Amino acid sequence: MATQTMNRQFRLKRRPAGKIRAEDFDFVESPVPAIGPGEVLFSVLYLSMEPIYRLWLTDTDHDLPPVAIGDVVRGVGLARVVASNNDNWKVGDLGSGMFGWQDYAVPPPPALARVARFPANLPVPLRSLMGVCGSTGFCAYFGLLDIGKPKENETVLVSAAAGAVGSVAGQIAKIKGARVVGIAGGPEKCRVLREEFGFDAAIDYKRTDWREQLAAATPNGIDVNFENVGGEIMNAVLERMNKGGRVVLCGLISSYNDGARESGHLQALGNLLPVFTRRLTMQGFVFTDYAPRFGEAAKQLATWVSEGKIKDRDTVVVGLENAVDALNQQFDGGNIGKLVVEISAP
Amino acid sequence: MATQTMNRQFRLKRRPAGKIRAEDFDFVESPVPAIGPGEVLFSVLYLSMEPIYRLWLTDTDHDLPPVAIGDVVRGVGLARVVASNNDNWKVGDLGSGMFGWQDYAVPPPPALARVARFPANLPVPLRSLMGVCGSTGFCAYFGLLDIGKPKENETVLVSAAAGAVGSVAGQIAKIKGARVVGIAGGPEKCRVLREEFGFDAAIDYKRTDWREQLAAATPNGIDVNFENVGGEIMNAVLERMNKGGRVVLCGLISSYNDGARESGHLQALGNLLPVFTRRLTMQGFVFTDYAPRFGEAAKQLATWVSEGKIKDRDTVVVGLENAVDALNQQFDGGNIGKLVVEISAP
Repeated sequence: MATQTMNRQFRLKRRPAGKIRAEDFDFVESPVPAIGPGEVLFSVLYLSMEPIYRLWLTDTDHDLPPVAIGDVVRGVGLARVVASNNDNWKVGDLGSGMFGWQDYAVPPPPALARVARFPANLPVPLRSLMGVCGSTGFCAYFGLLDIGKPKENETVLVSAAAGAVGSVAGQIAKIKGARVVGIAGGPEKCRVLREEFGFDAAIDYKRTDWREQLAAATPNGIDVNFENVGGEIMNAVLERMNKGGRVVLCGLISSYNDGARESGHLQALGNLLPVFTRRLTMQGFVFTDYAPRFGEAAKQLATWVSEGKIKDRDTVVVGLENAVDALNQQFDGGNIGKLVVEISAP
Repeated sequence: MATQTMNRQFRLKRRPAGKIRAEDFDFVESPVPAIGPGEVLFSVLYLSMEPIYRLWLTDTDHDLPPVAIGDVVRGVGLARVVASNNDNWKVGDLGSGMFGWQDYAVPPPPALARVARFPANLPVPLRSLMGVCGSTGFCAYFGLLDIGKPKENETVLVSAAAGAVGSVAGQIAKIKGARVVGIAGGPEKCRVLREEFGFDAAIDYKRTDWREQLAAATPNGIDVNFENVGGEIMNAVLERMNKGGRVVLCGLISSYNDGARESGHLQALGNLLPVFTRRLTMQGFVFTDYAPRFGEAAKQLATWVSEGKIKDRDTVVVGLENAVDALNQQFDGGNIGKLVVEISAP
């Protein structure tokens, strides 16, 4: 199989302050590694862009230990096997895992064991395996259904609703019969929420009257908050929650670049008073905790997509060299739906 | 039955700023009310002092609507029937409910329906019906067991651990085989936690090295946070929580007098980042939600007290006229165990 001979990698040079910049990394080239006994060489096709990457570049253990200075930047990708000394993987197999910001990866045994294999000849575009039928869809599926547990006619409020996970979470909530309200930035995203994704109402947080929009869009309060952002708007949402409501903590991106700091630790400050007095349940989760149920989720999500009940939107940034800008786009609200970086044309 | 002829009442005069003061109330006297058809006159024996009263004096709906200006201040009490036109209540019956800060109460029908009746000739002091065998014990019992769910050898961290609810929650956690660490203010309270209540370790938050004490007392991290206080120390606790940990939001007293404010609303800011990345479950509760199970809890708590497994401590302030100071004591950390105001000697 024809492959390049050089492997490009983003290696962490220093801890970023605020948004990441090219100078925070070394973009280096080295020969594609040879594989030893039991090892597998993957060519990375797509790198999934996820806001949580920013947290991994801080010096604190969040869901995973920090990326060490000098290490390849951590990231989830879709990759194809191009060489294998391992009976479990053959050339041409497709897998999703922590391949990092690089062209080629030889995952060490623990990481290799966690690479999820996809069946051949799937009836969806490869990119969907990073999106609605992959990690993005899994976040929406398990977070909304296992933690949010929306009932028919309840009100579900989704923040960053035009983003990858939010747009899918909102559409699943609609399938379950909830009233769905999304928060997004700007009139075009709000239009897409209502007209393409079928949300009942959309709140443009860039308008100064967002509090009034929020009140108008949730006349019966809020039962489920599918939260991706955090900060001032989330706190206003919490104050509109009904007793017994559920808060799904899927992300807190408003804090990743420039959260409050206490004793050197990043903070995302939320108002706990309504959590207490309204008897809310707030739960954090990371989709990988649900790995044993990925098959169930993938099957259900693919069915919903094929039935037209979930619309799949994505944005592709071409070229590994553009990964820094692509990550920052997640925080600027620059894209609708899933954002992937195409590393190697499949 | 001999009764006084006058009824003293605290009525809310204005919304307090910071700690409550005598000038925030009218302390008035009026004749003891006559009862109409179906009504019951209670003589209040003890008023339970609970930090959440402070929240009810703000202008915002928290767990209950605000106390209106001019209304009798809301509060939980233990009272005895002194006159009855109601077949469900006879003179001499004991009940616990929202009797308010006054000598006598004639609860309107919805409030009367929620008064919990106690059986006659209980083998515990009457004051215990406000404490470990009443609302205080119920908070500890349901909060710790239903939400915290401590497993054997897990670490349970209790804040305001020398207080009414905290001291009982910690002792129940010990009964369940957990390692129990309490936070309290000053060496005497820390001594009581270890020597009387059987905690494994105590952290004196008034010492500047409380962060180091916290780290030393929780070498295996924290699995359950039974939280009564909120604020900076809680945020440090959250950062030591283990993946999958539970946060029982029983109270956030650090914010009730002088919390942050956003758009006029009181806030209690907590760091949500570890809730997300450590997959914590944080749940607020109010013990009255568990009313159907009060019988189960009272029986179990009384058994533990009689077996010496739960030590019951309380402080009695004599005289309704001292209720303002008594409430403030809750925030000054002035007492160990339950604080009650004795209104009428039983």
